[in-house]
Amino acid sequence: MLGAGQLGRMLALAGYPLGLRFQFVDPSADSPAGEVAPLLEADYTSSAALDALATCDVVTYEFENVPVLAVQALERSVPVHPGLRALAVSQDRLLEKRCFRELGIPTAPFFDVASQAELDRALVQTGFPAVLKTRRLGYDGKGQRVLRAASDVAPAFRELGGVPLLLEGFVAFERELSLLAVRGRTGETAFYPLAENHHADGILRLSLAPAPNVTQELTAAAERYGRALLDHLGYFGVLALELFEAKGSLYANEIAPRVHNSGHHTIEGSRTSQFENHLRAVVGLPLGSTEPVGPAAMLNCIGSMPDARAVLAVPDAHLHDYGKVPRDGRKLGHVTLRASDARTLAERLALLRPKIWPGSS
Amino acid sequence: MLGAGQLGRMLALAGYPLGLRFQFVDPSADSPAGEVAPLLEADYTSSAALDALATCDVVTYEFENVPVLAVQALERSVPVHPGLRALAVSQDRLLEKRCFRELGIPTAPFFDVASQAELDRALVQTGFPAVLKTRRLGYDGKGQRVLRAASDVAPAFRELGGVPLLLEGFVAFERELSLLAVRGRTGETAFYPLAENHHADGILRLSLAPAPNVTQELTAAAERYGRALLDHLGYFGVLALELFEAKGSLYANEIAPRVHNSGHHTIEGSRTSQFENHLRAVVGLPLGSTEPVGPAAMLNCIGSMPDARAVLAVPDAHLHDYGKVPRDGRKLGHVTLRASDARTLAERLALLRPKIWPGSS
Repeated sequence: MLGAGQLGRMLALAGYPLGLRFQFVDPSADSPAGEVAPLLEADYTSSAALDALATCDVVTYEFENVPVLAVQALERSVPVHPGLRALAVSQDRLLEKRCFRELGIPTAPFFDVASQAELDRALVQTGFPAVLKTRRLGYDGKGQRVLRAASDVAPAFRELGGVPLLLEGFVAFERELSLLAVRGRTGETAFYPLAENHHADGILRLSLAPAPNVTQELTAAAERYGRALLDHLGYFGVLALELFEAKGSLYANEIAPRVHNSGHHTIEGSRTSQFENHLRAVVGLPLGSTEPVGPAAMLNCIGSMPDARAVLAVPDAHLHDYGKVPRDGRKLGHVTLRASDARTLAERLALLRPKIWPGSS
Repeated sequence: MLGAGQLGRMLALAGYPLGLRFQFVDPSADSPAGEVAPLLEADYTSSAALDALATCDVVTYEFENVPVLAVQALERSVPVHPGLRALAVSQDRLLEKRCFRELGIPTAPFFDVASQAELDRALVQTGFPAVLKTRRLGYDGKGQRVLRAASDVAPAFRELGGVPLLLEGFVAFERELSLLAVRGRTGETAFYPLAENHHADGILRLSLAPAPNVTQELTAAAERYGRALLDHLGYFGVLALELFEAKGSLYANEIAPRVHNSGHHTIEGSRTSQFENHLRAVVGLPLGSTEPVGPAAMLNCIGSMPDARAVLAVPDAHLHDYGKVPRDGRKLGHVTLRASDARTLAERLALLRPKIWPGSS
């Protein structure tokens, strides 16, 4: 596995029962997966890393910013899933948006921006507000600026400039939903129910799954988009598709070619977790059921971990501590909350929230 | 943790999400837990083992035949749960039976047997059939002989003799049930629903949980016995109590001061697994719900592992491969099967059985 963060850690914990063995590679020695599996501290493109992974039966990655070069080198000797195509598309917001457009998946209007003059021309099309984003290396709200007025333009371009950019028209969405799709090397495709995601400061805080008030039409549209992407990308593994809902329609925001934070609820909330299904998919085992066990909520622990005693005193709350050193804005863990019905879930959520996010209500 | 077998492995996998870290000690380097956590290959009573464990916050054990001496030495510097008392009682069938009797828990009549003459006298009381057992080191049907006629007596005594023995009257039971009880350092006590266990050649093959056709009276009696044991033994952690059901009454067979094979279904079948609850109990976290998610079955893989593809093609089947080298009669893994209702479970069980036990029907 390329990358040894919390996603890698949860993949390893899901894979051991299947009889799988892991080798992680990460440039950082202080990586959550290294606590539960062998970790080689090395650059992804180093010969040490490539040699170690070339002896594996299959290689996968836990984040989309691993160098394409490393995957290209590995593909000569070992299957890598999801493949190069998914990686390349998800590393570049422009390729990603073009891919949506090509597949007939609605998305916000977007414009390739290489200069202030191009930005000015694009803004005529989008109007204000609009979102200026770096084409590469953006996550958790990083590498983007909202332009609300003409006076925002020059400073934002300066701050983000020097790298290729993209201007997106603003979608006045009511909520963010995400779809987790999975396709196995056996040929099966499965979808988890849509999750509803709530952010603060650009970071996911809360997911509700299955998302409340989702029509059959909405689910059908999301799954149609997901299937088109899996097919187009020749994809094996879990794919996350972030969507905006606006006036009953869905707009694709971005994809992640990996397990996703908005799918962490599946560990306790689904018959088979996203982690287990990703592994089943990439090693060629049959997929497990994506059916929910009941309504669930996932709450991220950011910057500091809550008191475990307080969290676990809430009925059917499940703690996931990634074993990371606390730092402001860092995802250190999450808590999954389950209940047999939506009302009980809401009651328990009211109990749990202040224990995880002091000061929130 | 003393012992690094599959129980230790599953405890570690359940403990990582809680933010726990593990150090295992086992005389064998080829131990399933060693694949997922640091393992010190050493005798339990070696100073290397005792020094390594003395630096931990809490020590527990994954099987009941660890030397009492090791636990006595450790207790001077670190809390060990479940404690010395539970360990001593469960290591000696005579102490165990006396403990049942003292607590008013029905059990088969039993007699301490040190000589052939004592055995003959005891057989007058029990009649045939009766079961002759070694007082110590018995598990999975080992260290016992059924005496069906006078001609069985001398050979059985010779075979088992040389060590302290116990003669037990035969209980003509209809089925074996097991209770998993857990008490936390927080003071809470919880019980999983009774499981129904099926053996072949003295080894557990199949557990059904919750056990079908269990009356409220039966559950209440089992939980009364479980609670009496937890209290009497000053117990923290998961305790397994094996029971025979005969004509609507329960007879205690034996206890195991640890997580138990008949509780493996709780990983997917319960809101909180026995492994997680054992850890929560011994480290002082609140216990999790022991409520079942739905009906479940657990099938042991003995001697050889089934084809993973075939197993996982059965809906809601979950594979647990312990990563062990195959050997006749060795527990190599298990499969948990779930369903939303008993009928569907039975249908899926019919699909799954031949994949795990070829030749069974």
